Amino acid sequence: MISHKIVPNISVDCVVFGFDFEKLNVLLVKREMIDEKSGKALISDHTLAGYHIFDDEDLDSAAARILKGLTGLDNIFLEQFGAFGQLDRVSSPKDKMWLEYINQGFADRIVTVGYLALIDNTKVTLTLKDRDVSWFPVSMIAEMEMAFDHKFLFYRALEALQRKVKVEPIAFELLPDYFTLSQLQKLYEALLGTSFDKRNFRKKVAQMHYVIPLKKKQQGVPHKPAQFYLFSREVYEKTRKGRISFII
Amino acid sequence: MISHKIVPNISVDCVVFGFDFEKLNVLLVKREMIDEKSGKALISDHTLAGYHIFDDEDLDSAAARILKGLTGLDNIFLEQFGAFGQLDRVSSPKDKMWLEYINQGFADRIVTVGYLALIDNTKVTLTLKDRDVSWFPVSMIAEMEMAFDHKFLFYRALEALQRKVKVEPIAFELLPDYFTLSQLQKLYEALLGTSFDKRNFRKKVAQMHYVIPLKKKQQGVPHKPAQFYLFSREVYEKTRKGRISFII
Repeated sequence: MISHKIVPNISVDCVVFGFDFEKLNVLLVKREMIDEKSGKALISDHTLAGYHIFDDEDLDSAAARILKGLTGLDNIFLEQFGAFGQLDRVSSPKDKMWLEYINQGFADRIVTVGYLALIDNTKVTLTLKDRDVSWFPVSMIAEMEMAFDHKFLFYRALEALQRKVKVEPIAFELLPDYFTLSQLQKLYEALLGTSFDKRNFRKKVAQMHYVIPLKKKQQGVPHKPAQFYLFSREVYEKTRKGRISFII
Repeated sequence: MISHKIVPNISVDCVVFGFDFEKLNVLLVKREMIDEKSGKALISDHTLAGYHIFDDEDLDSAAARILKGLTGLDNIFLEQFGAFGQLDRVSSPKDKMWLEYINQGFADRIVTVGYLALIDNTKVTLTLKDRDVSWFPVSMIAEMEMAFDHKFLFYRALEALQRKVKVEPIAFELLPDYFTLSQLQKLYEALLGTSFDKRNFRKKVAQMHYVIPLKKKQQGVPHKPAQFYLFSREVYEKTRKGRISFII
């Protein structure tokens, strides 16, 4: 294994969202530090998927590397949602103890660049990975213990995601290639924390010309099999050209 | 003067936009290095308004400090548009020569956080400042020599601005408190690089309930004095609440 030189005071943190057809989830990494004598956990909480950048890679590559390591996936949707450099990012006694414990030469002053990542849950099998990484429902985060300022970063990412899905077709990154309209509705409901009337929702989707019905239908379902749809970026790009709207 | 310790490898760069009722402008700082013997300019180009962060300030404070220094203004609209950490950000011989010349201990590897700033041109008098700072029409930038990757950053900021004005009422930051509908139209035309039919434009504005007509009119103009309007953030916040739209 080649060892890379890290940049001690610049990191990236990825807030990885996934959708399991019922709820929105986020990928977190367990952080644990056990007291050798008592066997008691001195630290047991969660972090976002992040690390320092190497001196031979740019920010995007660092984020992609970290996600590849955790999920085995390339070509994940990744977008910055902000850089964070508050003076007290790493100030709790727990966080200081942790940094001393892992002792990897990180600086006191760390600026992190937050990345929003969107994954189709069905494409990733986390159980194969050696790190203790798991999906948590977004609704659980408020109650959880998180390292550093990662809970704050999580909520900034969630806000960015909610803002973006209203103006860009990025929600489709969370769905498999083929999806039903019920799955699409559940996704938008999970993302926006609201519920839509089924008929109204379908009327709106009918206006999204880039959501294209297929001949393919669901198989082996206990109910009447639903039709599959796909998202066409090509059609989206073509049809959005003329739409300069400033009614904000 | 208190001297601050800089963080050598983290900077902020501000892309400051202003509107002069005719065109969109950007604030640039002249960079010059003169050969002492020949008196010839070895370097003569422009940079964005930026500097390294101090170790006792966060990113937002650093950006605000830099803008205060250049314009004398507090409370400028400031928003990040991205962090940039490409390996070749500071790789041209000119840029390396410049960093050696000013010799302020900057690192080789500099990650910069880009800030988009919007200023009402009428509020700032740059001629009072001691640094060589001036407004340049956005249309001129393509032809200009710029330092580091600042031309690239400028275009990323312009893209972010054009994206944002379609979904948020930030264009009003570029106007004085009172403005006419012609001024508003000129602003949107300058921002989006398009032209609107006057009647259609006014129909759209009529739907923006947060653009409020005043009894006040222009004075001392050679044409029929136009009515003034103001932007009400309060009305905007109140009326956008219900509008969850996902027709993207």
